[in-house]
Amino acid sequence: METPGLSTTRIAAFSDSVFAFAATLLVLNIKVPEVLPAQLAELPSQVLHLWPQLLSYMMSFVIVGIYWVAHHVMFHHIKRSDRVLLWLNIAFLMCIAFIPFPTALLSRYGVVRTALVVYAGTLTITGILLEILWWYATRGHYLIEKELPDRVIRLGTIKTIIAPCAYALSIAVSFFGPKLCVIFFVAIPAFYILPSRLDRYLLKAAE
Amino acid sequence: METPGLSTTRIAAFSDSVFAFAATLLVLNIKVPEVLPAQLAELPSQVLHLWPQLLSYMMSFVIVGIYWVAHHVMFHHIKRSDRVLLWLNIAFLMCIAFIPFPTALLSRYGVVRTALVVYAGTLTITGILLEILWWYATRGHYLIEKELPDRVIRLGTIKTIIAPCAYALSIAVSFFGPKLCVIFFVAIPAFYILPSRLDRYLLKAAE
Amino acid sequence: METPGLSTTRIAAFSDSVFAFAATLLVLNIKVPEVLPAQLAELPSQVLHLWPQLLSYMMSFVIVGIYWVAHHVMFHHIKRSDRVLLWLNIAFLMCIAFIPFPTALLSRYGVVRTALVVYAGTLTITGILLEILWWYATRGHYLIEKELPDRVIRLGTIKTIIAPCAYALSIAVSFFGPKLCVIFFVAIPAFYILPSRLDRYLLKAAE
Amino acid sequence: METPGLSTTRIAAFSDSVFAFAATLLVLNIKVPEVLPAQLAELPSQVLHLWPQLLSYMMSFVIVGIYWVAHHVMFHHIKRSDRVLLWLNIAFLMCIAFIPFPTALLSRYGVVRTALVVYAGTLTITGILLEILWWYATRGHYLIEKELPDRVIRLGTIKTIIAPCAYALSIAVSFFGPKLCVIFFVAIPAFYILPSRLDRYLLKAAE
Repeated sequence: METPGLSTTRIAAFSDSVFAFAATLLVLNIKVPEVLPAQLAELPSQVLHLWPQLLSYMMSFVIVGIYWVAHHVMFHHIKRSDRVLLWLNIAFLMCIAFIPFPTALLSRYGVVRTALVVYAGTLTITGILLEILWWYATRGHYLIEKELPDRVIRLGTIKTIIAPCAYALSIAVSFFGPKLCVIFFVAIPAFYILPSRLDRYLLKAAE
Repeated sequence: METPGLSTTRIAAFSDSVFAFAATLLVLNIKVPEVLPAQLAELPSQVLHLWPQLLSYMMSFVIVGIYWVAHHVMFHHIKRSDRVLLWLNIAFLMCIAFIPFPTALLSRYGVVRTALVVYAGTLTITGILLEILWWYATRGHYLIEKELPDRVIRLGTIKTIIAPCAYALSIAVSFFGPKLCVIFFVAIPAFYILPSRLDRYLLKAAE
Repeated sequence: METPGLSTTRIAAFSDSVFAFAATLLVLNIKVPEVLPAQLAELPSQVLHLWPQLLSYMMSFVIVGIYWVAHHVMFHHIKRSDRVLLWLNIAFLMCIAFIPFPTALLSRYGVVRTALVVYAGTLTITGILLEILWWYATRGHYLIEKELPDRVIRLGTIKTIIAPCAYALSIAVSFFGPKLCVIFFVAIPAFYILPSRLDRYLLKAAE
Repeated sequence: METPGLSTTRIAAFSDSVFAFAATLLVLNIKVPEVLPAQLAELPSQVLHLWPQLLSYMMSFVIVGIYWVAHHVMFHHIKRSDRVLLWLNIAFLMCIAFIPFPTALLSRYGVVRTALVVYAGTLTITGILLEILWWYATRGHYLIEKELPDRVIRLGTIKTIIAPCAYALSIAVSFFGPKLCVIFFVAIPAFYILPSRLDRYLLKAAE
């Protein structure tokens, strides 16, 4: 069923606002340390001890950035929308807007299995929703431009599915050792930011 | 009286920001549980106990999404604005921006009559304001395109009024049993998301 | 000195975002009451006691709405910008973004002279800055369209100056009786929302 | 590697939202003082004691404003984007969205070396990232319009580098006396707002 008035431009603009707010809200997780006036000499060390909060902030900001880029690339190709796409997108945005919570958990407790599992679990679901959205829009060129070559569609499919798979794997790994999990948390965003050989390989594989 | 410079495009863009921001603020209601380092083993169960907060978050996010869609469909048809429409819209947005409060109340106290009544009450008023806005804009095709068929206008009127009526009914029901009320809270959003037979029936009834 | 790339459209869009965020942030001032599980019967009365917070929220939301409308009407006429206009606008937005603080003060302490003075003081400065902005843009038709009739300029000048004058007066009045001050707080927004005879009188007076 | 769909217009619009939101979030650092009903007479003096918070708010709001203006001027000239520019911009926005934290630290502790160093350090990194972004986009007219005269590019380079250099210097100065540091904190924003003789001198020097 059609929803008149909800052009993909409008959907993209609304999504942009949610991405921007979710990213900016993350800073509220970095709490100013409370030090009594008599113990002000401890303030520098207290501030230095905020580094896990700072790292969580940076990691989550970058992840929101990665999803913002991926979302834009998809909506560059998606030309029409229907009710299902609309609600898949809202469900995806619900996950993006949720990211400040697992970030706060990780900021508060550090490399602890519960925090890692919640964080990785959120990103697994986020990634799966984006994959479903892309699959729904592209199967049989349903909502995308007719001329979009299959290899671009497949490249999008492959690149999108890697993140949720890797985060799901990191959940399994966290049961062997939470610190092993951190390697995944660093490697996954890096994979999406850095222009890599793998990237070119995927492009070839998709052809 | 006219307000020059306030095109409906501008009004819709401002409304979009309020929708996006109200939805994203909802995550602040999910509080990180405080567990002492010695009792860290309790963290997983504490996190699992957050499910009412999570459900409140999801429900409110979806409701903001529903109103965003409804608002857009209306402003797709509304072509002109006047001072009354402008302030009806601001009053409606005041309700949307208020939603984080009843959500916080429901997150904190769960299925308790006071929380349910405040939540349902907020959405009753929100829905009534949107209904008045639509009625004001469409009567005699005042602010909408001349060619818009009456059945589209009536469909909008009927679909918009169902939510506040159902929420008002849920307030009454909550006095018999708060848990009965939950059925309404699940059914109302579902009605607006799912493409239903009722939907097609309403379209026919409106003709 | 010119600042290339800062068209008035861009300035208006940025201002819109600040207006929307400031309005939506206001809801954070309404705190969920803390009631122990054993005293849950007190929750309804505790929630009812939130009415001053609710009124503060509504008043501030409406005031942000009024300034949003006034700002748009002005930037509908302002066609060019320079460095001074840019920074007058940023100073004005700084006041708008500040409104959640006096609102929180009023929410927390109610009709108490300090809270009233801070609230009225903020709005006095906000109004004066908007007046200066309008005066700067319009004197000698400096940044506005050449054809804009003088009476429209004068109407803007008069309507804008009334609010800060009235809020300044309400500060003086608050020293005689804080409750008298409340009359001003209700009357000023009402004056800007309601299409009044005074409005038509001002239009005539400006001619 | 190209990222289709991410026009510079889109990047600028997303950045605008982050700027507006970071600026508006600053107000949350000004906390309503807690005074018992019996000691309400102390409220005025408690509110007056908020002036350091107010000054921090104003300073950070103005700094976000300065970076917003600088960013816009740059993106007025930048006509294309690539993956590196995209991520330089996201890293820059991560710093802008971080500003509420050092502001909160300064609000809480006032003119204390730790707070000053964190504040100045954040702005040093922010400024360096903007400088790198501008350098990357302009070298060999890579991403900018071909006709942009070299002196405009150089003026941008010089004006952008002054802020991080001055903030880095203020860190060094803070070890001799935190109060000396305040002079830098006032002078740097003033330099960017006021149309100065230096400005014209720089324009000449860049030619």
